[in-house]
Amino acid sequence: MPKQVDHHQRREEIARALWQVVEQRGVSHLSLREVAKEAGISHGALQHYFTSREAMLSFAMDLAYEQKSLRISRGLQELGDLPHPRDVLRLMLVEMLPLHADARAASRMSAAYVLEALHNEKIHAQARDGIAQGRLVVEQLVRQAIADGYISPDRDPVAETNLLLALTGFTTLIELDVVGPQDALTAVDQYLDRLFAGNDHGTGSEGGRSR
Amino acid sequence: MPKQVDHHQRREEIARALWQVVEQRGVSHLSLREVAKEAGISHGALQHYFTSREAMLSFAMDLAYEQKSLRISRGLQELGDLPHPRDVLRLMLVEMLPLHADARAASRMSAAYVLEALHNEKIHAQARDGIAQGRLVVEQLVRQAIADGYISPDRDPVAETNLLLALTGFTTLIELDVVGPQDALTAVDQYLDRLFAGNDHGTGSEGGRSR
Repeated sequence: MPKQVDHHQRREEIARALWQVVEQRGVSHLSLREVAKEAGISHGALQHYFTSREAMLSFAMDLAYEQKSLRISRGLQELGDLPHPRDVLRLMLVEMLPLHADARAASRMSAAYVLEALHNEKIHAQARDGIAQGRLVVEQLVRQAIADGYISPDRDPVAETNLLLALTGFTTLIELDVVGPQDALTAVDQYLDRLFAGNDHGTGSEGGRSR
Repeated sequence: MPKQVDHHQRREEIARALWQVVEQRGVSHLSLREVAKEAGISHGALQHYFTSREAMLSFAMDLAYEQKSLRISRGLQELGDLPHPRDVLRLMLVEMLPLHADARAASRMSAAYVLEALHNEKIHAQARDGIAQGRLVVEQLVRQAIADGYISPDRDPVAETNLLLALTGFTTLIELDVVGPQDALTAVDQYLDRLFAGNDHGTGSEGGRSR
């Protein structure tokens, strides 16, 4: 049992070394050799934990998703017992953007992973399933918000969900300094204000809410 | 003079070989050696045209932007003399998504390039300038559409421009088969319908337009 824990812990350490390589040197440097160097272990020792670049990348991505879910869960706890659906969606959206160090690392990992997915069926399936699962959570939130009168019933829940996910396009704009983090947040807030406008429950984050 | 033309033409051929490598094998295979192989020339001959991976990538990206601009120009011509601003924005947005082979190749190139930009100041500056220039064109369109009464004056032109650009986030969703191309277009159209709703000129692509 302790040996298995050690094994898992060591895999996590290696995944973090992989993040470091992607974050600091870029995906073009991502190889078992570079990660072994960053983790301070031998290439042979690394292969004891991951037999391929693919397996390593896949585990690192799972870990990134896991950590993101954890940050969202913590954020949800802070929102209290009956959070406004606008606040829940905002929390999820903002966590997907590279606005703090952990989210930026995850978003760079994710970009590297998506590029890899285009040429690797297994990673493609893993990435698709992960994002589709997240998409479903957002769609359920949107449908519930429509049913509860927070969002106008005129809105198409599928299209609205897809648009919310597409807003992760801010990632590139922020990373390239085309749009500043504050401007991105302003745009996201205006977007959410309109999504939640013209309904029974008021117009969004400030005032007008009823529970 | 003919020699210079040849030189430029050969550089274009090499850039296309680079696209092929990125498109078919992925950015992790992007090296001078792989591109030389794809272009059917020797590594030494390639270095006559590009002295570094960075120079090659930078040229290939310029070429991709150029071709995208050309496709948009052609699309604009088809829209006639006084195109509706909604149609112009739709054309630009759709061309940014991987909905046909050329746009997909450009978008994969672009994704590889953005990842490279995170760890290369020169490429970062080039990518930022290219996207910022495109952003400015969109902002001018949005401001003009507000001035001409196509978009409500309540809308913030900066945030609206940023949101339009952020919708390129559909790229990942389409590439990973999380959102189908048709569903992405439906969402973009609903988005544009709302952006152009509630103004002097009617509600978007169908009917209600005045010139």
